[in-house]
Amino acid sequence: MKLDGVPSRTIWLERDGWSVGILNQTLLPHKIDRVTLRTVEDAAHAIKSMQVRGAPLIGVTAAYGVALAMRADASDAALDHAVKFLAVQRPTAVNLRWALEDMRATLAPLAVNARVAAAYARAGAIAEDDVEMCRHIGLNGLALIKDLAEKKDGRPVNILTHCNAGWLACVDWGTATSPIYQAHDAGIPVHVWVDETRPRNQGAALTAFELLQHGVPHSLIADNAGGHFMQRDDVDLVIVGTDRVTAGGDVANKIGTYLKALAAHDNAVPFYVALPYSTIDWSIEKGADIPIEERGADEVLNVQGRLSNGDIASVAISPEGTPARNPAFDVTPARLVTGLITERGVCAASRQGLLSLYPEKKSAAA
Amino acid sequence: MKLDGVPSRTIWLERDGWSVGILNQTLLPHKIDRVTLRTVEDAAHAIKSMQVRGAPLIGVTAAYGVALAMRADASDAALDHAVKFLAVQRPTAVNLRWALEDMRATLAPLAVNARVAAAYARAGAIAEDDVEMCRHIGLNGLALIKDLAEKKDGRPVNILTHCNAGWLACVDWGTATSPIYQAHDAGIPVHVWVDETRPRNQGAALTAFELLQHGVPHSLIADNAGGHFMQRDDVDLVIVGTDRVTAGGDVANKIGTYLKALAAHDNAVPFYVALPYSTIDWSIEKGADIPIEERGADEVLNVQGRLSNGDIASVAISPEGTPARNPAFDVTPARLVTGLITERGVCAASRQGLLSLYPEKKSAAA
Repeated sequence: MKLDGVPSRTIWLERDGWSVGILNQTLLPHKIDRVTLRTVEDAAHAIKSMQVRGAPLIGVTAAYGVALAMRADASDAALDHAVKFLAVQRPTAVNLRWALEDMRATLAPLAVNARVAAAYARAGAIAEDDVEMCRHIGLNGLALIKDLAEKKDGRPVNILTHCNAGWLACVDWGTATSPIYQAHDAGIPVHVWVDETRPRNQGAALTAFELLQHGVPHSLIADNAGGHFMQRDDVDLVIVGTDRVTAGGDVANKIGTYLKALAAHDNAVPFYVALPYSTIDWSIEKGADIPIEERGADEVLNVQGRLSNGDIASVAISPEGTPARNPAFDVTPARLVTGLITERGVCAASRQGLLSLYPEKKSAAA
Repeated sequence: MKLDGVPSRTIWLERDGWSVGILNQTLLPHKIDRVTLRTVEDAAHAIKSMQVRGAPLIGVTAAYGVALAMRADASDAALDHAVKFLAVQRPTAVNLRWALEDMRATLAPLAVNARVAAAYARAGAIAEDDVEMCRHIGLNGLALIKDLAEKKDGRPVNILTHCNAGWLACVDWGTATSPIYQAHDAGIPVHVWVDETRPRNQGAALTAFELLQHGVPHSLIADNAGGHFMQRDDVDLVIVGTDRVTAGGDVANKIGTYLKALAAHDNAVPFYVALPYSTIDWSIEKGADIPIEERGADEVLNVQGRLSNGDIASVAISPEGTPARNPAFDVTPARLVTGLITERGVCAASRQGLLSLYPEKKSAAA
């Protein structure tokens, strides 16, 4: 999507044809900083230091990291080392391991002198696949927005989103944001309610940044405010992303999603979840079986932002010695979800719904 | 309640018998600072600069402000001037005007040389009335906590609260916090989930401060997290305060209250609202008719807190140019409220319930 007015991606091959450019996301939303990766160590650092974030983007960065490693040394030993070295940078990132195993399976059978070209080709294909998947999620969600727009007589369709399931977490388009960008680019008037998404403020820092850069009308709101706007008919649609959807259609997503789903249900506002197929966990039926990560108290006790002099600083919001708890995700039960938007279409949040889009999974989910 | 280990109030008569001490709340939770008011101008400044906050406390401060004015000049002109001067410091504070009219009605009929003593006596009585009202709210709520404690086999009763309806907004005890302090002081194990309450973070700054000072176990959480803890059976009871309750039992309170009420309802967690009779608006039946104050965007775009060097600073959490919306309150419909806790007892959130406690209002609410 647009950055400084120019269509951009989160990761790209530089004009020299081999080095890899990324947007350094650690300084967002305060500064747009681009970094060039020239070695596998650079790629590892970008992943570990969270210059890149979001499962799809981490996977693509790792794939390019293998390509950079092959350029220096394309031997079996170097391939093995690169895969292992990159995998440990974010140990729990499933997509990171998936991308690395894909690269290993692609490159290992090849002659050493064919590996560099093949590595760049495969990394590029992984990136393009993500872009296409996100684009199709957007096109499928666009139909929902179009239907709502027809009832609004030219007034904007008001869409609420939580956290950042945007292009900054992917290569382009994003998941929850993709239908919004598609609608905006198609000339449909939209306005986005952006939950700030405490404790890490991904909505305020990333989603608001994305939408501002692309020129999509939006308003930042406290996480507390969405229910009120729904009560006042100021929300036409909710679209969020997800970290994991069970085979039964329960949705794990950033903490607070459940509260917005309750409010949407109470006010008859459609509540949709956008996701690629890779997010579906066919091995789990019920959301209660999803383990919920509890993160450090410091994220609740402190807020990072920009001082009036431009410096980035962290401030403590409570007295010294305050205890805090910080569950990172919650589970929205399928009964509160109007539908799931995937790259294959829109379906009900249920086993039947998911199998209607992914019939090949009938045995896996049985 | 306790401050630095010593039972304290938010406002008190100093040992000299005429000057008035207050806790300067503008520096909370970062610093405990006490201020002495010696003139009506001091009292006005305390109100305007929000050194004192909360409807009951503002009223008591204004009453003492009149007493300080009488001490300098007890003439009719001085009384009239003091009342008018204090009233304009927070133009929309209903309780401020009520306290001032009470003082005027008490003092105006008296001889000039009797006014100083009468003013101090009346201001003191207004303060004591507030303490007694809050104490009775606490005793009525205590019964609910006791019932829950009996089912917990010695494990703490987990109570969630939103914003600050604590003793810092009153003279002592608070409203929503009063049952909690009563239970804690009676040796019933309690643990409080404290919503941080963005955008102004009254939970993090004030409620966490109160509970820490009084020694009540608690955990600060993001506003997003309460629903998750309810899903996991980690919340036994919700108690919040309110800015206005309609004759039909709808509850206006700090933005985000509605979301917690929805989650409580979805998880069969009792949801109570604590209030003094003065908060009931007999003239309005439905919450939808309550005007909702919209405050400045800067509260959403910025967070105030303590830098690592101890300085208090504000940080911007979103990119420059981000638009924001900031409704300060929302309305929780009566159907989501298990009961109202007042100084007279506990009742259903309905016209019938309220009239059972306030039968003298039958004509007013007809």
